Amino acid sequence: MGDLGGSTTAGSGRRMHDLMRELFPLNRSLTGDGVRATLATIGRTLPLSIVETPTGTPVFDWVVPREWAVREAWIDTPDGRRVADLSSSNLHLLGYSVPVDATLTLAELREHLFVHETDPDVVPYRTAYWAERWGFCISRRELDTLPSDGLYRAHIDASLHDGSLTYGELVLPGETEEEFLLTTYVCHPSLANDNLSGIVLLARLGEVLRERSPLRYTYRLLWSPGTLGPLCWLHNNVDHLGRVRHGLVVSCVGDAGAFTYKRSRRSEAEIDRAVVNVLRASGADHVIRDWAPLGGDERQFCSPGFNLPFGAFSRSPADTFPEYHSSADDLDFVGPEALEECLEMLIEVIETVEANRIYRNASPYGEPQLGRRGLYRSVGGGSSSEAALLWVLNLADGENTLLDISDRSGLPFSEIRDAAHRLLGHDLVSTRAGADRPSRA
Amino acid sequence: MGDLGGSTTAGSGRRMHDLMRELFPLNRSLTGDGVRATLATIGRTLPLSIVETPTGTPVFDWVVPREWAVREAWIDTPDGRRVADLSSSNLHLLGYSVPVDATLTLAELREHLFVHETDPDVVPYRTAYWAERWGFCISRRELDTLPSDGLYRAHIDASLHDGSLTYGELVLPGETEEEFLLTTYVCHPSLANDNLSGIVLLARLGEVLRERSPLRYTYRLLWSPGTLGPLCWLHNNVDHLGRVRHGLVVSCVGDAGAFTYKRSRRSEAEIDRAVVNVLRASGADHVIRDWAPLGGDERQFCSPGFNLPFGAFSRSPADTFPEYHSSADDLDFVGPEALEECLEMLIEVIETVEANRIYRNASPYGEPQLGRRGLYRSVGGGSSSEAALLWVLNLADGENTLLDISDRSGLPFSEIRDAAHRLLGHDLVSTRAGADRPSRA
Amino acid sequence: MGDLGGSTTAGSGRRMHDLMRELFPLNRSLTGDGVRATLATIGRTLPLSIVETPTGTPVFDWVVPREWAVREAWIDTPDGRRVADLSSSNLHLLGYSVPVDATLTLAELREHLFVHETDPDVVPYRTAYWAERWGFCISRRELDTLPSDGLYRAHIDASLHDGSLTYGELVLPGETEEEFLLTTYVCHPSLANDNLSGIVLLARLGEVLRERSPLRYTYRLLWSPGTLGPLCWLHNNVDHLGRVRHGLVVSCVGDAGAFTYKRSRRSEAEIDRAVVNVLRASGADHVIRDWAPLGGDERQFCSPGFNLPFGAFSRSPADTFPEYHSSADDLDFVGPEALEECLEMLIEVIETVEANRIYRNASPYGEPQLGRRGLYRSVGGGSSSEAALLWVLNLADGENTLLDISDRSGLPFSEIRDAAHRLLGHDLVSTRAGADRPSRA
Repeated sequence: MGDLGGSTTAGSGRRMHDLMRELFPLNRSLTGDGVRATLATIGRTLPLSIVETPTGTPVFDWVVPREWAVREAWIDTPDGRRVADLSSSNLHLLGYSVPVDATLTLAELREHLFVHETDPDVVPYRTAYWAERWGFCISRRELDTLPSDGLYRAHIDASLHDGSLTYGELVLPGETEEEFLLTTYVCHPSLANDNLSGIVLLARLGEVLRERSPLRYTYRLLWSPGTLGPLCWLHNNVDHLGRVRHGLVVSCVGDAGAFTYKRSRRSEAEIDRAVVNVLRASGADHVIRDWAPLGGDERQFCSPGFNLPFGAFSRSPADTFPEYHSSADDLDFVGPEALEECLEMLIEVIETVEANRIYRNASPYGEPQLGRRGLYRSVGGGSSSEAALLWVLNLADGENTLLDISDRSGLPFSEIRDAAHRLLGHDLVSTRAGADRPSRA
Repeated sequence: MGDLGGSTTAGSGRRMHDLMRELFPLNRSLTGDGVRATLATIGRTLPLSIVETPTGTPVFDWVVPREWAVREAWIDTPDGRRVADLSSSNLHLLGYSVPVDATLTLAELREHLFVHETDPDVVPYRTAYWAERWGFCISRRELDTLPSDGLYRAHIDASLHDGSLTYGELVLPGETEEEFLLTTYVCHPSLANDNLSGIVLLARLGEVLRERSPLRYTYRLLWSPGTLGPLCWLHNNVDHLGRVRHGLVVSCVGDAGAFTYKRSRRSEAEIDRAVVNVLRASGADHVIRDWAPLGGDERQFCSPGFNLPFGAFSRSPADTFPEYHSSADDLDFVGPEALEECLEMLIEVIETVEANRIYRNASPYGEPQLGRRGLYRSVGGGSSSEAALLWVLNLADGENTLLDISDRSGLPFSEIRDAAHRLLGHDLVSTRAGADRPSRA
Repeated sequence: MGDLGGSTTAGSGRRMHDLMRELFPLNRSLTGDGVRATLATIGRTLPLSIVETPTGTPVFDWVVPREWAVREAWIDTPDGRRVADLSSSNLHLLGYSVPVDATLTLAELREHLFVHETDPDVVPYRTAYWAERWGFCISRRELDTLPSDGLYRAHIDASLHDGSLTYGELVLPGETEEEFLLTTYVCHPSLANDNLSGIVLLARLGEVLRERSPLRYTYRLLWSPGTLGPLCWLHNNVDHLGRVRHGLVVSCVGDAGAFTYKRSRRSEAEIDRAVVNVLRASGADHVIRDWAPLGGDERQFCSPGFNLPFGAFSRSPADTFPEYHSSADDLDFVGPEALEECLEMLIEVIETVEANRIYRNASPYGEPQLGRRGLYRSVGGGSSSEAALLWVLNLADGENTLLDISDRSGLPFSEIRDAAHRLLGHDLVSTRAGADRPSRA
């Protein structure tokens, strides 16, 4: 662990998991009080700004929809049972269902029932944000118990009303106005990995970064409903996007799967190279995926008009694990260790871009005499262990960043960074005058 | 199959093979009436222009040679047999043999006899266009029957006279003057795969394209004697070569071997990328070869002074199959299915370059809301099946062609093209104003 | 073998090994008479220039140290033996030891004794150029015989005095002032592979090149003490470094290991491409290593302020063989055949850069008619064996060097060079007017 980590992160896994447990029951959706309550909970330890965008606001090609509220929802069966009760799990209700109170046959009701495609024991998660529909999600096993004769009563006490879409952001000013934006989505109800894990990870990361503020970059952490939330944020900040130097979409960080990084549309942006560098040096199982315009909120940040340097960081990505979008994605599916490992990995990434600068060798004609500065063994003849010093000196020509040097040398970024700092202490390198050149991208 | 294909090509294999059967006996060479008769046969269904270049015409570093005509050629043996008779196979006569009527021993005759290097049962194919020679080609098994005593009579009633070199071309004007030139060679006598297959494939392709004219590109199909034919065409068209945007040399397309594409000298011209894309998406066995200045007529089109974007399309390339340049390359060696598959593959290539344009996302800030346009599922939560739409939207930034998008996404070109057309129908993309940028090359 | 090789190199292996035997006993170091005697021996057959740089001279970040001389050095043991005697092996004395004449216990002496880390039977090689220290190197087995009781006498009759650092260079003027600089280090005492092998190889290479002078390039061969020697040379020649077009550090060329080439900092300089081309075409076992700022004198030539195109050529590189820096690196460890193979390989490299030019096809529109110039078979129909001619014609467009053509075609450079010369003889190519373009780098 580097400068930001160490004891600061110890115990973080347990704290994050505890916060997930508290947030799990809230009924989050694209809009509404579930999101607000979630942000309020995070706001107990962090000074979040809450931004509301009113219903009807045009947001690029979209319009903010009506806000959804639901009080109760259930089905009464002909044999006297109450099933698909919202009060037992908020996955039972199709997200954004319109209100209904109807008596109908099973055949009629069947068109409003959703079951999981493969697993008969779980309740699927479904939404219909943009259609005037209502429906319930139940397990196939429960569906099979429903009598085919008799009448059912379907009851949804919901409303769609003019309101707003809510997101929260935390800004930690840095030494510069250049930003590192980390974002996650808050629109899913009781699903643990997807995406309470991302919500609590950014919350804990915010606490860690706040203790260390100011850093070189301004850090902005964003909790917003998926798709439309980032669009609202982009719309509200469209004149300031040039300050976004690095971005990460963080989600699905609580399961036991390998670390997964999906490159930005630019493929070789500094954030891409930093995350790949960190994952490779970690020795941990990991997967690097090429950019594709399918997935999560990176689709908005990396749309061609913005083309921001946003990658996506996760463990098992959304849509690739069997528990995805079902009641099996519960608190037992995620673990404190998995969360803590992700926190540490993100801190490594942040430390990497924080330290990634261009240095210039102040003594570029031949190697400087390291020995008289105590940087080199005094009895020659054995092997060299000063590799990082020599790599920095050799490539510090005003063109290469430390990340370039780490990548070309194959040495961990932390070793290269430490070598640069040692050389800086001996005036053997200097930081380049003027603004740092962006890394090759 | 795309827009040009479908029922148009059904039965084409049989028609092409029938045409090969008709053309097989003609005695084609670098010049002469065999070529003219071949072009006349093709001209029954296509409005060919026949171009004659007179003997003695300087053509770059070459001069058009005298025209060759032969009436009869045979060897009478001491034991009263007639062998190597031109009337039984026109492979028996060394191409461009000078006339002779001589009585000689077997030892003397032997210097004028050519046998196949490895297969004792076949008659090889040999020519001597640029030397004053005469000779016969026979099988080694027949050679072994010739008595060593007694006198032979070698008779060749041939003439070399001032005449011309003949090629035929079909021009199908397109919406633009930019051309796609497809060419094949007509100088081989009774050899089926090499290259009656190429001759009949272009003839059938010409019929298919003519039914669909005008297309975006002007299509020019060229049937010419190898090497000198393309040089004459280049010489005659040297001021208009800038209009040639794509080129293919088509030959050896009738055997059962894997599809083979040899890249142009440019390596990554649009034609190279289109053929490679089509072959990869086809799932068929295929081989991609790098450019080399050995092979067929692509050597002329890709000479450094021209450097035109010409690849070579075949099944088993010339010189790689045992039957090559021998009597074993007969009508049984080629099949209708093989020909028809090649026709379909070329049509796919043509459809690809026809449709390969640059589109620009008209709504590039975030993703447009596909759902309200009926382009997206209405109940969210499952997997996306709209990959092609999203890829086009994401990369339609005015820089990428559809081929670029297909290559980067790994989706078949036809899916990308269809997605672009759907988006165009909803005004979500536009074709770029002004001339299309050439694809990266 | 090409133009420079053949009978010239026959017997060279034996001559080089004999010279190693003669030079082996000399006590070379960073400075001093051992180096001077070594250069004088080479100077018997080659007109070396000897350059002395006085003690105290600032050389970039360094200062030339005092000169070291030693007359005798030994340890007398309490049991009456004399061990670590310089007169039996000059490895016994820590290089640059200060004088001492002391009586001490084994415990006190122990801090001045160096043994090999892994092999108990060998004497290690150690130096302390930049520290005021004294010491002896012995085998661990000998160390174990030293009695723990009693007093030892350690005696070193050495001096450190104002003098100079010595290097020798051979300059063979060429047709141009552009230089190919080959360098090796002369600072090691009785070690055979590291680096008497490099010393004698350059000596023999100098003789071979001198017989053939003038060549296209000016050849400069440099024998200098490691690190500081090249720095002195660079300091003395800093205004003329632009003339250095190619450079090689040659060392450790006498063992049985695979040929090893380490790329320059530029990675793809002409010298890099030439050596890689030659090694690949040779069919010999070889290893290509990427640039790293660890190793030998290439660290100075490739420091960022100079960034000269210097690679490193060896068999088993320094620090990779068990005998490295120990008494096991003796005359039996190296062989005449290994040396001679390296000589031939370097001559091939030299022939490659000598012949590497840009040619321009004088007949670039279509292929020229090779047949009428006797460059092509007269009876067509078989396979082509004229590949090299066709490759040169096709790529001789004023952009590609012969090395480019060899690399792209996969044909050996010698075949490409010979083809270019044949074409030049027929005026089918010309050498480009003006200065040759440097190869891609």
